[in-house]
Amino acid sequence: MPGKITLERIMALQAAYVRCIDHDELEAWPEFFLDPCLYKVTTAENHKLGYQSGIIYADSKAMLIDRIAALRQANIYEKQNYRHILGLPNIIANGGTEAESETPFMVVRIMHDGQSDIFATGVYLDTVRAVGRDLKFVQRIVVCDSSRIDTLMALPL
Amino acid sequence: MPGKITLERIMALQAAYVRCIDHDELEAWPEFFLDPCLYKVTTAENHKLGYQSGIIYADSKAMLIDRIAALRQANIYEKQNYRHILGLPNIIANGGTEAESETPFMVVRIMHDGQSDIFATGVYLDTVRAVGRDLKFVQRIVVCDSSRIDTLMALPL
Amino acid sequence: MPGKITLERIMALQAAYVRCIDHDELEAWPEFFLDPCLYKVTTAENHKLGYQSGIIYADSKAMLIDRIAALRQANIYEKQNYRHILGLPNIIANGGTEAESETPFMVVRIMHDGQSDIFATGVYLDTVRAVGRDLKFVQRIVVCDSSRIDTLMALPL
Repeated sequence: MPGKITLERIMALQAAYVRCIDHDELEAWPEFFLDPCLYKVTTAENHKLGYQSGIIYADSKAMLIDRIAALRQANIYEKQNYRHILGLPNIIANGGTEAESETPFMVVRIMHDGQSDIFATGVYLDTVRAVGRDLKFVQRIVVCDSSRIDTLMALPL
Repeated sequence: MPGKITLERIMALQAAYVRCIDHDELEAWPEFFLDPCLYKVTTAENHKLGYQSGIIYADSKAMLIDRIAALRQANIYEKQNYRHILGLPNIIANGGTEAESETPFMVVRIMHDGQSDIFATGVYLDTVRAVGRDLKFVQRIVVCDSSRIDTLMALPL
Repeated sequence: MPGKITLERIMALQAAYVRCIDHDELEAWPEFFLDPCLYKVTTAENHKLGYQSGIIYADSKAMLIDRIAALRQANIYEKQNYRHILGLPNIIANGGTEAESETPFMVVRIMHDGQSDIFATGVYLDTVRAVGRDLKFVQRIVVCDSSRIDTLMALPL
């Protein structure tokens, strides 16, 4: 029986998720999601207007896996590193084994020459479900504050 | 009987506070405070020198409500969005139903053209009190690291 | 008997550590470490390549104390302030009284003229041990994302 969802477990999930990306362990990234799932990257403006499409949209684990495979093959652009810094999560609703949370994020991009700048800020709108000892994403909508998102955006947010 | 104050409850309060501002639910912002209260925005330099006044000063919920009303009416400047990212809180003293904590913050400003920059960094010096299931601010002193604070600063920090 | 290490205790340690630095209480900084210890600042690139040396290296509390003493004497450069913002920690291994954790960080530098910029981002790779009611660092390796680290870097990260 999966244990009750707590703030501590949500924090641990969020921390593990961004570690996976920032440590370039992208092949493990789809494992954070259930199947089917919803993973969407959008802008605050489009989210507010209720647009269903996004900059990135995936509704199955296979689509997430494809995305990483494509990224590995097409990795011809200038090497960049990212650092996610997460704020403190809000639990919006908690049914015990399924919960909704919102977690603010900032992503810093470190260019090859060492220059660092703010790549993106926003909020993760999540529905998470307890599966055994783990929490998995039923849904993660990444709402970026800025409407000017780098169209070369390749790494998951 | 209000429950004991814990790090988890303080984190939840801090997260809810910045969500309220970043989601533009400003009318709910005064509800985070007791009445009377102390809400002050100042600079690290002035705080160190012991100056009592601040860039912003309010000692009642009515003053907080007025501030939001004025902000809504005067909203003629260029549209900006803010994103607060909070660091991990320190509990400095904890009497069970009243506690002092310090929470570092960073605010990123997202301009209309999509450009993002660091608007402010600093620390929240708080006294919080358990009121039923909630925590409320007895006092929040917002100490900004930089002395160059945008004088057009309108949104609460 | 020291209590079991929890995420909450690790968060409290991380928060206290950066508060010590950002509040300029540097003389208390070596107290966060056991003796002997390992404190190293390095870059992601050098860390990946397995280089043992670092930009800063100390393996005893005496070396940490010396570092602060030297910093206080040599404090001739332009006054700067730093603000650490920590992300959510990952617990990588937890043996109960000793644990390994990874905590992302960002440091904002506030110059005398009020300008703020991103000074460093990276991750703390820590081994912590419960000593009575406290947690102490057995080892802290500060891995900076950028290879362009200010060689005048004087304050601890």
